[in-house]
Amino acid sequence: MTDSSGNNAFVKPLTRAGRSRRDVLKLGSAATLGAVLGGGALLAHATPVGAQVNSEGLLPPNAPLNILIVNYDGGTLLDFAGPSEIFHRLPNTNVRYASLDGGNVTLEFGVVYGNTERLADIEQTDVILVPGGSDLSAPMRPAYQAQIRRLAESAKHVTSVCNGSLVLAATGVLNGKRSACHWAFVNKLSEYGAIPVPERFVEDDNGRFMSGGGVTAGIDFALRVAAKLRGRQAAEFTQLAIEYDPAPPFHSGHPRDARPEIIAMVDKKLPGASRGLARIPGVR
Amino acid sequence: MTDSSGNNAFVKPLTRAGRSRRDVLKLGSAATLGAVLGGGALLAHATPVGAQVNSEGLLPPNAPLNILIVNYDGGTLLDFAGPSEIFHRLPNTNVRYASLDGGNVTLEFGVVYGNTERLADIEQTDVILVPGGSDLSAPMRPAYQAQIRRLAESAKHVTSVCNGSLVLAATGVLNGKRSACHWAFVNKLSEYGAIPVPERFVEDDNGRFMSGGGVTAGIDFALRVAAKLRGRQAAEFTQLAIEYDPAPPFHSGHPRDARPEIIAMVDKKLPGASRGLARIPGVR
Repeated sequence: MTDSSGNNAFVKPLTRAGRSRRDVLKLGSAATLGAVLGGGALLAHATPVGAQVNSEGLLPPNAPLNILIVNYDGGTLLDFAGPSEIFHRLPNTNVRYASLDGGNVTLEFGVVYGNTERLADIEQTDVILVPGGSDLSAPMRPAYQAQIRRLAESAKHVTSVCNGSLVLAATGVLNGKRSACHWAFVNKLSEYGAIPVPERFVEDDNGRFMSGGGVTAGIDFALRVAAKLRGRQAAEFTQLAIEYDPAPPFHSGHPRDARPEIIAMVDKKLPGASRGLARIPGVR
Repeated sequence: MTDSSGNNAFVKPLTRAGRSRRDVLKLGSAATLGAVLGGGALLAHATPVGAQVNSEGLLPPNAPLNILIVNYDGGTLLDFAGPSEIFHRLPNTNVRYASLDGGNVTLEFGVVYGNTERLADIEQTDVILVPGGSDLSAPMRPAYQAQIRRLAESAKHVTSVCNGSLVLAATGVLNGKRSACHWAFVNKLSEYGAIPVPERFVEDDNGRFMSGGGVTAGIDFALRVAAKLRGRQAAEFTQLAIEYDPAPPFHSGHPRDARPEIIAMVDKKLPGASRGLARIPGVR
């Protein structure tokens, strides 16, 4: 899994963190058994480093929870479509969508997400979620960064999916904080003073900072956020409602598993990607 | 997994089809090993019943592929956001979005998907994809059904995610065909002459009909469709790009795995759900 130059900057952290998903699932099986038998402590073994899943959520059941999903031109639909689907199903939870100018936003591939509010009109939010994108030019501009910084500083939970963590990190709010990112870009986090952690879900400061890996990691991320804030039962109910019982046809979801010819395709399109050092438009 | 009335109409097909995802992953692991060693035949073992994954796609590499995603008020964003993310990344593939009246569509939870074309303006498509929704009133109306029937009859591949299969089935095009559906509604398919198959991916007539289970099953579905039409390499590349390396925090994604208290919550909200017989607005 080293590249032709022998650079293994990305492989090292992967090895540190990278026990296989199959191991996690096996542990998860034991955890489920434990739960059925009346215990819950085993569940912690099924969670990657940094994740804590409690039976009770951090919030009282009736306390309202406001979640803001940030949108911008060039963003990736699936980065926030997974979290959106999960958060909308939680009790007493309000999900809003905002962009710098409000209205329709043209995402990656020309996909249009509609009817967003203006960021300047959002006074405060409990949770801010910054999804990633194929072009981060828009959210890296000063006016956009100022809005994200303002809302993140006053939020109880600062979160991201995919390379949305680069957008957050560029504002300075992730200084010294552990964060996830899409595997192709994760090591760019250190350029903004954040600590790159190549895992699917990363938590710091007991949940003040929570982040997911690339694109589809947003689903696992959101279920963990749901469990953390609204309790395990609400998260499990949501997982059942969205039939999240994944059965990928290939083992190709991460550089640790993908075939060499597939990794070569990625590195050709995005030089440095398999070392977590790919460049993305809009990121200096 | 039987309910209080002892009805196991849904459990029976589950038992027939329902080997665990963990078994699938274990088999998948052997398949990957086989691939690395130069073989590919083992991969078939990792695919649920009905799925065939070829190294080469059905289409010549340079043949254009047109995919139409159908939208309607009350639809579910994540049902098509997964497939959208995957299909847009395939070579020589054009993805369009259309609704009866065109323009913005207000999905479940008030989420707005923007800038759709008018169905009547789409002359023909190679693939039609009908996603599901929490309210099927709109796509069950005669004018909408007529458009779906017209496009499905001339399409090479007729596909759905979640209870979008009920919309397709109501047009008559799934008569006698095996189809997937969200687990809560799967047995409704028989009321429209289709054959309910409680699996995550279902194929009939060698890929003329392909369908996914509930919501997140759209991701597995789309990777299989991608492999079928554009070949395994394109599908694996896409899986890597979207970091589809799932690590669910709980085993709660299907009634066969969820805790009894979670299933009870579902049956309370949607009577009959755990037997695949839940009612949904708009479905008679």
